[in-house]
Amino acid sequence: MRITKQTNYAVRMLMYCAADRNELSRVPEIARAYGVSELFLFKILKPLVRSGIVQTVRGRNGGIKLGRPAEKITLFDVIRETEDSFAMAECFENDEAECPLVNSCALNSAWREALNAFLEVLSHHTIADLSATRFDIGSRLGLGELRSAARGH
Amino acid sequence: MRITKQTNYAVRMLMYCAADRNELSRVPEIARAYGVSELFLFKILKPLVRSGIVQTVRGRNGGIKLGRPAEKITLFDVIRETEDSFAMAECFENDEAECPLVNSCALNSAWREALNAFLEVLSHHTIADLSATRFDIGSRLGLGELRSAARGH
Repeated sequence: MRITKQTNYAVRMLMYCAADRNELSRVPEIARAYGVSELFLFKILKPLVRSGIVQTVRGRNGGIKLGRPAEKITLFDVIRETEDSFAMAECFENDEAECPLVNSCALNSAWREALNAFLEVLSHHTIADLSATRFDIGSRLGLGELRSAARGH
Repeated sequence: MRITKQTNYAVRMLMYCAADRNELSRVPEIARAYGVSELFLFKILKPLVRSGIVQTVRGRNGGIKLGRPAEKITLFDVIRETEDSFAMAECFENDEAECPLVNSCALNSAWREALNAFLEVLSHHTIADLSATRFDIGSRLGLGELRSAARGH
């Protein structure tokens, strides 16, 4: 049982934006900081932009930033956009399920109840909480150094 | 986010055993009822037998049965045996993680807290609860018919 890589890096991207003291963060820099591809991050950005969690600014000096204060973005908001499915098992996902129990199965509601408890906890954690140690995160992500380098120092 | 197919069918196998009014259930019959391969079910059986959730009886009239009353087997007991890992994201699973935040990440504890809520719910559901509509499940799984056929009716 695990969250997808998409959700994991969506949260990390938002943490980066929250930790970045500049107005706009750049995807190539985020990709470099986390050691993942830009293409992968751009793919994750789509649902985040569509739902307003992230705003994009186009152009040479463009970049991305949080669409609302970090205090107003919960982990539940993020996971809702980035997970493809909350069907806990393939037998509940489509009508072609093989299992003869599919319509009378108490297991369905047990998984659902557990999932709700999981999501309930996530709704109490915000990107702001996760970025509370902002300065430490900023330095670990190399934010200061990158900016200095970009400015030619 | 989803549970593995292993966990899903482990629970279904236990529901089958609980619904089966005979002393022993046979894996080929369970495989046929759920439309999965015997090999797959035998693979899942290993950790269930090792942990005592399932008992096997060898021989021509052998088979499997619950290792203790269905009331004493929770979904948590099962998932603990059948899920390979409870690391919610690959960055917490090994020491080779790329993420520079891995040692200072509040996200780790947020996922962990949510996972604990998920597992807590599962610890309150037993195989007996899931098999409460035992007769309905038995007929849906074709248990009556299979036995009649085996007896030559």
